[in-house]
Amino acid sequence: MKIVALFPETEKGLDNQLLNTEKAIGLRDFLKDTEHELVILKNGEEDLDKHLSDMDIVISAPFYPAYMSKERIEKAPNLKLAITAGVGSDHVDLEAASQHDVGVVEVTGSNTVSVAEHAVMDLLIVLRNFMEGHRQSVEGEWDLSKVGNQARELQNKTIGIFGFGRIGQLVAERLKPFNVTIQHYDPINQKDNENSKFVEFDELIKTSDAITIHAPLTPSTDNLFDEDVLSKMKEGSYLVNTARGKIVNTEALAEAVKKGHIQGYAGDVWYPQPAPADHPWRTMPRNAMTIHYSGMTLESQARIEDGVKDILNRFFNNEPFQDKDIIVSSGKISSASYTAK
Amino acid sequence: MKIVALFPETEKGLDNQLLNTEKAIGLRDFLKDTEHELVILKNGEEDLDKHLSDMDIVISAPFYPAYMSKERIEKAPNLKLAITAGVGSDHVDLEAASQHDVGVVEVTGSNTVSVAEHAVMDLLIVLRNFMEGHRQSVEGEWDLSKVGNQARELQNKTIGIFGFGRIGQLVAERLKPFNVTIQHYDPINQKDNENSKFVEFDELIKTSDAITIHAPLTPSTDNLFDEDVLSKMKEGSYLVNTARGKIVNTEALAEAVKKGHIQGYAGDVWYPQPAPADHPWRTMPRNAMTIHYSGMTLESQARIEDGVKDILNRFFNNEPFQDKDIIVSSGKISSASYTAK
Repeated sequence: MKIVALFPETEKGLDNQLLNTEKAIGLRDFLKDTEHELVILKNGEEDLDKHLSDMDIVISAPFYPAYMSKERIEKAPNLKLAITAGVGSDHVDLEAASQHDVGVVEVTGSNTVSVAEHAVMDLLIVLRNFMEGHRQSVEGEWDLSKVGNQARELQNKTIGIFGFGRIGQLVAERLKPFNVTIQHYDPINQKDNENSKFVEFDELIKTSDAITIHAPLTPSTDNLFDEDVLSKMKEGSYLVNTARGKIVNTEALAEAVKKGHIQGYAGDVWYPQPAPADHPWRTMPRNAMTIHYSGMTLESQARIEDGVKDILNRFFNNEPFQDKDIIVSSGKISSASYTAK
Repeated sequence: MKIVALFPETEKGLDNQLLNTEKAIGLRDFLKDTEHELVILKNGEEDLDKHLSDMDIVISAPFYPAYMSKERIEKAPNLKLAITAGVGSDHVDLEAASQHDVGVVEVTGSNTVSVAEHAVMDLLIVLRNFMEGHRQSVEGEWDLSKVGNQARELQNKTIGIFGFGRIGQLVAERLKPFNVTIQHYDPINQKDNENSKFVEFDELIKTSDAITIHAPLTPSTDNLFDEDVLSKMKEGSYLVNTARGKIVNTEALAEAVKKGHIQGYAGDVWYPQPAPADHPWRTMPRNAMTIHYSGMTLESQARIEDGVKDILNRFFNNEPFQDKDIIVSSGKISSASYTAK
């Protein structure tokens, strides 16, 4: 079979990375003594169209995607499988894929722990006013009162988790020994667990000292944290978002942070992505934003490598994929994250 | 009795602070309808000498100390008690205090949780390469490989805790659900507990992916992390220090970080303090330093207020102090942290 894979160019000195044209998550070695042909695209997505006519499998990562539009899928009569090297298959037209019986699978779970760790770190950074403490360190200052005046402990705070799926639950586990009150809202998972209490959305918004978002982007979460919802959050509270940038309204948030109604904002998701150089969240006060790398630790990359190889092995051997990994199969979109409204 | 208290000047706009001349941790109200006289020093330490002749109690914070030298203690015949509004009484000559029967008490425990939280935050920040992710965010860049290449998860790492007293144990509790291997060295506390395994110092240094320091500054920890010890740490490992700056050699560390042998360093303690504007740790690569504020959260300040009032109440009522708070009493230095060699 002909397997076409897209990875970002290898950068000099970044020798640990697995997701680049040189390392190519070990696919060259993996496919070396097999009947399969591997094409690593040399000029990024540009070269993709040259291979549509005879490729069987396409592989790319969500942060550097091969956009498999309806048009491209129609021009690829042999295409059987689109593998996402990571989590998030928005770059594939899932309707078109299901119509043309192209399977879409991803490495579900490869980034969950990594994102959960990032969210806990972000909560600590904003509550404890780390950014001001570090700014003074770098700029040669030493004014303790100016840091302390907005430095709070995580202990005894009420932390709201919006979206209580895999990642939200991992966050709650990690927060528990910090002696916090943990509550969550989730439209599906409405049960308490040993770490967190279910509350209605309005209560979550009004009573949390800090909220961390772990929901997929769906029509009901799109722009949910708008001016109205942000205004109902506690005065001086904190917001962390490692889910999707578009769940929070860009301008309304920047305004709420500027006014101090939201005391601190952190996270690593943006809309659009890559974030333009003048995106207001890059420079708004008291932000602890990062570019979208929370699921791109070296350990995540290693799990992605293992996961893609597992998917290929199953496909070559006519074995079923792991249920958790399937987005489109047998002409049906089966992942709840993509069908839930 | 005449009570002399030293606090930093109130800064405009920093209305949450309790440790300043205006709020004065509530002492004005607390002493208002009593027989006691309260003097809040107007010109900082300068005015201290004017009150030596007739003061009974002196109160100051470690980060803004009234230096009670031998000379000053000798000039204060009525002095009975030096209260540290916080933790750390290095600013009092303890020998002189014990000779002149001046009690020295502090609010032990007021900062333990706060410092433990800071250390966990710092471990996440350095391991996950937060600083590079945030730098790109601020500077308008978007190069995921450049962050990911040094972004690691906390999960599955071996974390070494040097010093397993109150704070070290709180750190271990908080790290546990991150699925890490926790080990500690402590000259006194050589037992395993449910979260951490005791190992010898050499093993701690050689086998930990990251080390966090929670030991007091004593002759045996002074300059302990020098060129030799740093060189024995794992290649590319991480070091966090929220204990005392002087435990780590300034130049040797800066060199080890520059070479990449130490991949990241974070913490909020320096030598000397306040750190001079050209202290090399302020600008060395991959540092996540803050000025020394980890124990100065608003919640810590509230505990300090409560603790100082408790100490005063006990003193006025001729009740014994809490053992944990006593540094010098009845002419003897009694705190293990100050006598241990």
